[in-house]
Amino acid sequence: MSVQANQRVIVNCLPLRQEERERFIQAAAGVRQEFIGSQTDLNDMPWRVDLPQELCEQATAVIGNINPKQVPLMPNLAWLQTWSAGIDAYLAPGVLTHETLITNASGAYGQPVGEHLFAMMWSLMRNFSVYSRFQYEHKWQDAGTVFSPRGSVACIVGTGDIGTYFARLAKSVDMHTIGLRRNASAPVEGFDEIHPIAQLDDYLPQADVVVLVVPATPETHHLLDNRRLRLLKSSAVVLNGGRGDAIDLGALETVLHEGLLQGVGLDVTEPEPLPENSPLWDEPRCLITPHIAGGTHLLATRNIILDIALENVRRYVKHQEFINRRH
Amino acid sequence: MSVQANQRVIVNCLPLRQEERERFIQAAAGVRQEFIGSQTDLNDMPWRVDLPQELCEQATAVIGNINPKQVPLMPNLAWLQTWSAGIDAYLAPGVLTHETLITNASGAYGQPVGEHLFAMMWSLMRNFSVYSRFQYEHKWQDAGTVFSPRGSVACIVGTGDIGTYFARLAKSVDMHTIGLRRNASAPVEGFDEIHPIAQLDDYLPQADVVVLVVPATPETHHLLDNRRLRLLKSSAVVLNGGRGDAIDLGALETVLHEGLLQGVGLDVTEPEPLPENSPLWDEPRCLITPHIAGGTHLLATRNIILDIALENVRRYVKHQEFINRRH
Repeated sequence: MSVQANQRVIVNCLPLRQEERERFIQAAAGVRQEFIGSQTDLNDMPWRVDLPQELCEQATAVIGNINPKQVPLMPNLAWLQTWSAGIDAYLAPGVLTHETLITNASGAYGQPVGEHLFAMMWSLMRNFSVYSRFQYEHKWQDAGTVFSPRGSVACIVGTGDIGTYFARLAKSVDMHTIGLRRNASAPVEGFDEIHPIAQLDDYLPQADVVVLVVPATPETHHLLDNRRLRLLKSSAVVLNGGRGDAIDLGALETVLHEGLLQGVGLDVTEPEPLPENSPLWDEPRCLITPHIAGGTHLLATRNIILDIALENVRRYVKHQEFINRRH
Repeated sequence: MSVQANQRVIVNCLPLRQEERERFIQAAAGVRQEFIGSQTDLNDMPWRVDLPQELCEQATAVIGNINPKQVPLMPNLAWLQTWSAGIDAYLAPGVLTHETLITNASGAYGQPVGEHLFAMMWSLMRNFSVYSRFQYEHKWQDAGTVFSPRGSVACIVGTGDIGTYFARLAKSVDMHTIGLRRNASAPVEGFDEIHPIAQLDDYLPQADVVVLVVPATPETHHLLDNRRLRLLKSSAVVLNGGRGDAIDLGALETVLHEGLLQGVGLDVTEPEPLPENSPLWDEPRCLITPHIAGGTHLLATRNIILDIALENVRRYVKHQEFINRRH
């Protein structure tokens, strides 16, 4: 990189209030900064922002999840700060054509996604998605056996921010927490046990709740396939808050159709949106939310993203090392 | 009471497995005990059991929620052990015609009802009843702002078993818990503050979650009426796990129709079942369950009820003082 201060251009795609914008201007004193985010819809942090042609050429830094297709058209892009935790779209072949640093918003999603999955667990243990269906049909009808987290076992696959946040919530209501991760050598806060993900098959049969919060990598594709789904207890609850393809949804449909599993909570699916004709929509023991757990619907999330971006703008201006660098 | 051992007849309405029945037989050695509960449907603890005519006349003790209309036809009934916590049906005028002791199953419902209300809170804070409606219509659609219990305020009206259990769960996820009860002089475990119920109006405006777990008494009829519902934040979640008439459901419909409140969870309604034409069935921010929170769908609940009944059978035989005496 040989970018000089007077050549640098930050394209800031964050939706910002006037006073927040001023904080960014202050943080980047001396560097040109273009704001293209909404000033009115403060929750508008989409997965793919399209930059105007002119800014594509000029931008040396971007704050926001720009369309990966635009990245090869950005000859001067030295730094990208995403508002997502996942950055896999930018690591796909052909996207990054020269050396670009990527920092993410890791840390902002532990609470919203961890809580969303925790809420899904409670809801499914109490048959609420079945009761919602009865309610839709004005039926005052009993849906049978319920389960309690108390004393039950959670297998949490992925022990990053989200997995750790979920584990802490789970511990607070007296669950036993087993974490599965690539490197199992060190303990992780909130987990009673940590094991290598290679031993997943040994832990699935004892799980009352399985939580998937893994990034999209070749190893996690269809991690829960037909064989593994059948290792689970018939009373198990399965939750996916990571990437949609971690579960083989065709196999999941079959297993649910056979009456196995107490419930399944999906905030992510493969593909997204879930096709209108997917049988999962009509499955009473399945609760589907449209990839919104990690959005900015929770005030705390948006504030953390802004803080990370602001800190990295300051560091960018001073040529200091970034926080949350992932590439 | 001048009942002699050889005249005593316990009518045991509990659904029991063979080995459980044997424990009751052992506990009542020397006293006749008639078992009329199911041996197959172990969850069958209905609100009104009808005794055969002959047993009505003979019974000196009953374990189970017999039809209150039968009570005046039971000339020898000295003791009634309910499997409910509420005993108001038996205290209504004209039911008890002579001195009958009543013991209840208080202690068995803290966990199931407390957890049910906690699950409802999470579900409503995360818009799951709205998402269930979208799902029914195969719609991948965003339902907007969500809330977190973390740092929020719960006003819990009624600080018995259920209120206390809910408060403990709430504390475990970093909520501030305010308990409202008739006698506010002593602290109660799990509550950050305890205040007299007479001051309810002062605490409603600061509540993020309002939990009603009050018995059916003249003072609690329409406790949340139109005026009090309008004291609440527009982001508040209201939960009723006590008796249905603690909320004026007509006023609730109006308030929800006006767009107030984040969500309402009702396990109890007035009347029950909720009439098929009630507009509440179609209210997306309302989650209705058919008075099943305190049923025996949770294994732990059934076991506690059996333990209480077994202990009191032992005490009945030995003419000792009962536990859980309420009348």
